[in-house]
Parts: sequence; C-alpha cells; structure tokens
Amino acid sequence: MKKRVLSLCLLAGMALGTQAEDVYQAQRARWLKLAEQNKPELNHTVHHPVRVVKAVEDKGAYQGWRFDTDKEMTPERLATTNFRELRRVTLDFGDHLTGYISLSLRSLQSLMDAPTRLKLFLGEVPAEMNTPLDPWADNRLARSWMQDEVVTLTLADKSYRLDRRISGRYLTVELMGCSPSYNFGLDSITFVAETSARPIADDGLLPTCPQIIREIDRVGKATLRECMQTVYEDGPKRDRRLWTGDMYLESLANRYSYQNHQLTRRCLYLFAGLAREDGILHGNIFEYPTPKPQIINYMVSYNLLYVLTLLEYWRDTKDRETTLDLWPVAIRQVEDALRYVRPDGIFDQSRGSSWNFFDWRPGIDVSVCIQALTINALQGITQLGQELGRDEDVKAYPARAKLMASAARKQMMDRKTGLFVSGKDRQVSVLSQAWMIRAGVLNKKEARRALTTVLGMPSSLKPGTPYATHYLIEAMLMAGMNDEARDYLNSYWGGMVQRGADTFFEAYDPQDDNLSPYNFSPVNSYCHAWSCTPVYFIHKYPEIFQK
Amino acid sequence: MKKRVLSLCLLAGMALGTQAEDVYQAQRARWLKLAEQNKPELNHTVHHPVRVVKAVEDKGAYQGWRFDTDKEMTPERLATTNFRELRRVTLDFGDHLTGYISLSLRSLQSLMDAPTRLKLFLGEVPAEMNTPLDPWADNRLARSWMQDEVVTLTLADKSYRLDRRISGRYLTVELMGCSPSYNFGLDSITFVAETSARPIADDGLLPTCPQIIREIDRVGKATLRECMQTVYEDGPKRDRRLWTGDMYLESLANRYSYQNHQLTRRCLYLFAGLAREDGILHGNIFEYPTPKPQIINYMVSYNLLYVLTLLEYWRDTKDRETTLDLWPVAIRQVEDALRYVRPDGIFDQSRGSSWNFFDWRPGIDVSVCIQALTINALQGITQLGQELGRDEDVKAYPARAKLMASAARKQMMDRKTGLFVSGKDRQVSVLSQAWMIRAGVLNKKEARRALTTVLGMPSSLKPGTPYATHYLIEAMLMAGMNDEARDYLNSYWGGMVQRGADTFFEAYDPQDDNLSPYNFSPVNSYCHAWSCTPVYFIHKYPEIFQK
Repeated sequence: MKKRVLSLCLLAGMALGTQAEDVYQAQRARWLKLAEQNKPELNHTVHHPVRVVKAVEDKGAYQGWRFDTDKEMTPERLATTNFRELRRVTLDFGDHLTGYISLSLRSLQSLMDAPTRLKLFLGEVPAEMNTPLDPWADNRLARSWMQDEVVTLTLADKSYRLDRRISGRYLTVELMGCSPSYNFGLDSITFVAETSARPIADDGLLPTCPQIIREIDRVGKATLRECMQTVYEDGPKRDRRLWTGDMYLESLANRYSYQNHQLTRRCLYLFAGLAREDGILHGNIFEYPTPKPQIINYMVSYNLLYVLTLLEYWRDTKDRETTLDLWPVAIRQVEDALRYVRPDGIFDQSRGSSWNFFDWRPGIDVSVCIQALTINALQGITQLGQELGRDEDVKAYPARAKLMASAARKQMMDRKTGLFVSGKDRQVSVLSQAWMIRAGVLNKKEARRALTTVLGMPSSLKPGTPYATHYLIEAMLMAGMNDEARDYLNSYWGGMVQRGADTFFEAYDPQDDNLSPYNFSPVNSYCHAWSCTPVYFIHKYPEIFQK
Repeated sequence: MKKRVLSLCLLAGMALGTQAEDVYQAQRARWLKLAEQNKPELNHTVHHPVRVVKAVEDKGAYQGWRFDTDKEMTPERLATTNFRELRRVTLDFGDHLTGYISLSLRSLQSLMDAPTRLKLFLGEVPAEMNTPLDPWADNRLARSWMQDEVVTLTLADKSYRLDRRISGRYLTVELMGCSPSYNFGLDSITFVAETSARPIADDGLLPTCPQIIREIDRVGKATLRECMQTVYEDGPKRDRRLWTGDMYLESLANRYSYQNHQLTRRCLYLFAGLAREDGILHGNIFEYPTPKPQIINYMVSYNLLYVLTLLEYWRDTKDRETTLDLWPVAIRQVEDALRYVRPDGIFDQSRGSSWNFFDWRPGIDVSVCIQALTINALQGITQLGQELGRDEDVKAYPARAKLMASAARKQMMDRKTGLFVSGKDRQVSVLSQAWMIRAGVLNKKEARRALTTVLGMPSSLKPGTPYATHYLIEAMLMAGMNDEARDYLNSYWGGMVQRGADTFFEAYDPQDDNLSPYNFSPVNSYCHAWSCTPVYFIHKYPEIFQK
C-alpha cells in the first residue's frame, strides 16, 4: 500500500508533503540496504610478472611506444640481482589486472641499515609510462590519478603491500633512495587481482568464428571483468565510479558473458537509494567510504538509460519483485524528461539544467540525440509497464512517443538529405542518425540511406568514443547493414586489438592515437566499461559476427 | 654445569668442538628468547598540533631558520579551510614525538571524485624542513632517511594513517594533486606517539636547582624517552637501531629517570643472542622483522662498553641470575680485547680489524682512548667478578690493567706537557686525556692539569659530539673540577636548549651549526640517545649541578 502511495506521489511529480517525504526517506534507506545486501564477493587471483621489458620509442607503435622483452633479465633473476645497481626495471604481468601489488626486498649482502625508497608506477599502456608527467597542467584531471607512488620500506625480507588499489599491466620499479652499503633484490612481486566476474569456462563462440572476432571478444570480456568490481565501474584506473551510461552497456555485455545479474541489481538499488529528495537520480555514484552520489551530475540522458537498464534487467531475470520495487523510480525519470518536452513534441534543453552526455567528441550538439533517447525510453518503459501489468501507469506514453517522433521528423530532419540535423547550427553527426534509428523514427530503408550518407560525408561529425560507436553499430544492425556493422566493429575494436590493447580504451580514434578528453592521453582510462560492448554484439548476433 | 663448560670454552678463546658449538648455539637461542620475553610494552599517547607555523629565515636562529606562530591560521580552522587553495601548511605538535601520524580529508563541497595526493614531511628541527633535499649527493646517508612521504588518499572523510613510524615535532602537509572541483579541509591530524618509558611524576630536582639545569634535565629526559622503544635506539628518526655505546649511556640516564631495567636486560640479551660463532659481539643490532646484527661492525670499544653496561645493570638490579647468565659473554669480550695487547702492555690496533669508535670528530686518533677503555674494562670486570664471587675468572686482570696503565704513561705520555699523545703523529686531543682520567691512569692533580692544559690549547682536538663530551664531563668530575664540569655542561647542552632543542642532537658544535658526520645536516639525528646523559650527571651529583 505504502509503495503504491509513493509511486503515485512520484508519478504526479508533485511536491511531497511531510508524511510522504518520510515514506520516501524510509524507501531510499531500504533500497540502500538492498544495494548493500547485493554487494558481490570479489574473487581474488594471484599473479606474478611474466617478463621484464624495455621501452622502445617506435613511431609505428600505438602512441609511439612499445615494450620489448628484455633478454638479459627475468622476473626470477630480479630476486638475486642487486637492485641498488640495477636501479630501474619494468615488469609485465601479462594481462590487465586490478587490485593490489606487493613485493619484498631480499637482502643479498649486509643488512638494510636505512629505509629503502621506491617509486612504483603501474600503467595500462606503454606510452603512459614513458611520457613525462610533470609539470602537470592545470586544465587536466587530477595528477593523483596517475599510479606512480613513492613508498618507503623500513623492513627487509618482509612483504610490503601498496595500500592503493591500482589497475594496469606494467609495473616500473625505480630506486629513489637506500643505504649505500645494502645489496638487495626485488622478490615476491605479486599482483592480487580482484573482480566480481566469475571465470567463464567456455568462450561461447562458434567454431567458424574469425580470429579477429575471437580476439575482440576476449579483450571485451577482459574489459568488462576489470570493470566489474563491487559496482560496475567505468574504469578501474580512472574514474572508478558507477555511471548510469556505463552500467547500461555493461549490463548488456554481462548478459552474454559473466551473467552476474546480482551486480546489476545492486547498482540499480544504489542509484535509487541515493536519489534526490524529488526522486531524480544522480548520474554517478561513489561507493566508498559510504555510497554517495556526485550531486553535480544531473543527467536526463543517463537517467533514461537507467530506465532501459531496468528493462534489460527484467528481461534477464524476470525478477518481478525488484523490477516492481524500482518501477516508480523509472517512471519518475521519464516524467522528469517529459518536463523538457514542449507541447509541439520537441525536447527543449533550455527548460532545465540537465547535462545530456552522448559522446566526448568536441562540439557535438545533442539536441537530436536526447530527442531520440526520450522517444526510446518512452517505448521501453511502455513495454516494461505492459509486461509488469502496470498498463495504467504507461498508458499516456505511446502517444507522447509518437508526437515526439513526428516532431523530430518535421523539425529536425533535412528533407533533401534525409539526415537529422542538430541544434541551431544544423550540425550533421553520425550519432544523431544512429539515435534516431534506434528510436525507430526512421524505417529500415531510410536508416540505411541516412547512415550511408552521413558516414560518407567528410564533414559529418564522427563518433569519438567506443561509447558512441556502440549506438552506431546498433543502428547499422537495425538498418540491416550487417556487413557494415561487422566491418566497422572489426575495424574499430579490432584496431585497438592490433594496437596491443589488453582491454578497450575510453577514447579511441584510429586517426589520432593521442586523443584525450582531458588534453593528456596518459590520464585516459585504457580499460573502460563502455568499450566492452562487442561482447554483446558478437554473442547476440552470432550469424553476423561469428561466420 | 653446561654453562660452566661453555664459559670455560669461551674463556679459553679456543676453537669450539662440535659438541660445544651445539651447546653454544642452544645458549644463544635461549638468550634471544629471553630478549623477546623482556620486550617492553609500548605506551601510547595521542597528540594533536598545537599551532600552525610559518618558516622564517633568520641568521640568528639555529641553522638559520625558525618557525613563528601563524596568526592567521589554527589547527582547528584547517578542518574548514579549503586545502585545495591553501596548498601547504606546517604544523607544530609542541614536542618531539615518535610514532604514527594520521589525518583525514574533510569534504567541504562536492565529492572527492579523484584521489588526493599529499606530501607529508615530518622533521625534528626547522632548518631540516627548509633546506632543499634534492639532488641528494651520493656521499650522504640514504635519501630515504628523510621523512618526506608522498601518499595518495582514495577515500575522503576517513582516517588515513601513514604506515611508516616517524619521529619529529613539525609536520608539513603539501598538496600534490587533487580533483579540480573538490573542496576539502585537513581534519583529525593526530600523532599517536609511543615509547617504552613510563611518565615520571616528579622531576626529582632540588628546589634550588637553576632554571637552565631544569631545562637541560627536561630535554635530556625527553631525548631518552624518545629513544626508549622496544630497544634503546640510537635515534628514533635515524638510525633506529641498538648500538652498544648508546645503550651504555642510556642505561646510566635510565637509572636516574625511567628506571626501566627490563629494557636494559632485553638489550643485553639481544647482543648476546646475536653474537658471532666465536662469542664476539656485533656493534649494533636491528630488531625487525627479526633481530639481526649488522655484521660489518666489529667494535672492541663498544664490546667493552657491553661489559661496563652489565656492571651497571648489576649495580642497578642485583639481578644475579641475569648477570651470571651473561658473565661468559662479558669475559669473552675482555679476552678478545686482550688479544690486541702486546706483551709490553700497549693495545695495538693493527692486530685486528676492530673499528674503535670514540667520536665523530674528523681525524681523531683513538690509540690512547682504546688503551684507556681496555684498562677501564679490566677494572670493571674485576669488580663485577669479585661481587659475583667469580674471583677465579678475573684473577689475572688487575695485573694486566696495571701493566697497561704503566705502559700508557711510559709510551703515550708527553713528559713535558703531562698530556697523552695519540698515534704516530702524537695527536693531542681532549678525549685522550678524558679517557685516561676515567681509567684512573692519572691522579687527581695530574688529571686537573691535563684537562686544564688541553682545553686551553687552541690546537688540541676538541670533542665533536655529545657522546664524547659525556666522557669529558665525567673526567672533569673525577679531576675534582666540579665548577668546570657544571659550566661545561651548562654551556654545551644548555647551548642546545637555547637553540630551541626539544631533544639533544647527535652532533653539536657551538661554533658550527651545520656540523654533520654525513656532510649534510638535515640527515643528522636531532634526538640522539648518546646525548641524554646530563640526566645522569644532574641526578648523580645534585650538590654539583643543582645548587
């Protein structure tokens, strides 16, 4: 009964009276408790370096650097090689790992009669570890994201564990200070990795599956595994938080790989439990020391993806209890989005302060994208409401979606080219077309024409991230452009594989190795949740991608 | 019975047969166990900064720097002052402390959406914290002794504890990186100090005691307190280990202050348990991770001070069981020293590889000092043997001491000046006279003359450390130069007090603020065990020092 009252309060979007506020407060506390109860156990695996490497500057390599095997040194021999003389070594753990490193100083001659200071630098890609980091420009993200730590060890022959959780593949150890008479080796270098993804016995691929797809699938799963911690993180090196947009794509790839739906449930409850007083969600959440939202990120685009994540969760689990429990949250986000929609059916961003994120491509106008996503969310929640038997709650939505679709065609489409144009400057972007196709505003033929045209236009704005590219691939498949979708996926994600990716990058442009949303590529995340979605496409459409 | 066998084996200095080796091995294991059983519990006290300070360059201040109270900031206000803007602060804990610091970042506005990197620099004296440390010259001690640590905090509003035990009074916190949108204060800055010294309720001083002596006594006790950990450390910042020479002086000051004789017992057993196969002691010991000697330091001078520490321990405790247990160890050290003594009664350093340390004064020749210390040790062990009823073991020693004393007068003394001259260059040092006086080789009148002469000679080598100065003060008292001893103590240790010392320094020369045995004064230890001995003099001779 209480739930129904709340649901209605939220539906009405009305100012909540004191009593309803109390009910809602208790509701959120209960959701947070459920989030906590659904926190997954992490699996731990123990790793050791597989080789010692040397950095080689190479214009042909990704970002200009590669690591070659050091033929004169092995990880085992480091234990008996005097590091006071060696001074610096880079180790390769053979795979991207997230967790904690430890090592010990092995006394070779005399006692450690002074503390030993080391710099430990863990990185994801070679260039990150060979680019000077200082001085750090003010316009970049925090310097402290970089995983170069200076530590002082006061005990020899005893394992030292770096307290910071770090993420990457390569570890440089550099001597910063020690006793001038102490000879020591680096021993027991260990990476205890953690993830809430359980190992998969079978890759689930057809025997016919081409090698490049196998590679893409492997790297995609590794990306997802690394990001699956006690929430769906966006990037385990950076930013280490739960974003709605990443969660949505991760939950899709999770379906075809680790199938840890408890993690999705936890994340859905976390967002709900940390919503604003008025029921609106925050775009991202930090888990520790206690779960908190980053209140500056009010994002209608991401809130609508919450709605779509709940729909996918329902499809995966048929977990009626959870889905109904979170139903009013989904409704509330849709209602909030509709606040922006003018009577003529156009989503007017000036009606509120939402940050509607769709891509990091500089200058992108998202008027068309948010219009399409709202239509898409109206369709999604209608479907979900009908499946849950909550027809009454969603009965107004099909007409709203229809109005928005026809308004889009009327006001946002260039009749001549058949392309959607975005904003007052009538920007032509690939993403605008992709989102409108996803929303079903174009039929298959129109969709094919629009995509073919926009991709062929040198001046059109292309996707700048794997995140945006996901929606392009999806649109291609909806447009029946299966070969193009496969080729694009092979070329885009396959391009990262060919550049040595162990996990897929946050930002990737085949034309610009050093593309960075933060003006400095070493601070990019090279293992980013939103890039894992080939796993979804490859397994959902085996006949397209695996033959 | 077994003990007696071993004792005789050691006494004979003979090669040990297999059976005796096993017995000795078991003996050392037992001693180590006793050392462990006597490990004191540490007392913990919680401290917070008492003020914020600003560094002021001042030629009149010790080493050219002083800290003034910052009138615009308080430790309390730091919690609500945005440290992202403040960037740097130096705090004063009001006293020299040894232990662990912790702090937390208090979120003032928005979330900590990136790690926060801080440099934490704890120092003992102002100049140490205001002298550029890098580049670090190769001829210095390890760079890692300096207590400047860079730490990356990934959680806000949660206490972070630096894992390294550090020691000092002043803490500089400096921002090295953080989210550009995160406002935070520094909160809960805490120093949990530890020592095995129990607080003393009464300072034990006469009402007549002059203020400067009161100050010296206070600082001396603080020095000892800081160095009393689970062993007598030489310096809690640097070197953090147990040296025989420091232990001897600490045990003397301990008698008149904390009276923790269990700690002395532990240290005596540690040295014994870690002795060489042939029964010779090592000059210093590290406790952690497991007790180990620094085998490069074979020091007859220090081993003889072990003998004298056992004598003082016996005097303090009348603990017959321990003293008899360690009796063969003491005998063994004396026998080893006698190996160096030629038939003519001169200690000949070329007969072995011992490092005979007496002072850090560059160029000092210790031939006379080691001659005197050996005489002194022979006297001491004879006395101890007689008190323990082991007359038989020591019956040969009085004659040996006598021979050495007369040989010294004959071969080492300048008849004209009445001064002992050391080495082939006939070096004239204050310390040579002091040690010979301590050994009773000069009578009171001769002693007074020698000291007066040598102290008045511009060209004589003066003591370079409080360690050496201890033996000078003692010699003055033995020479009946009570006023001179008091004045010297007042001027030397009082000089440190006037220069703002919270604890007494490892190296101190009133003429040279930047005196350093390591060519760089910031790496000096400013709280050094061997400097605490005014506590011994002041309380042993109240009529001289307190009236």
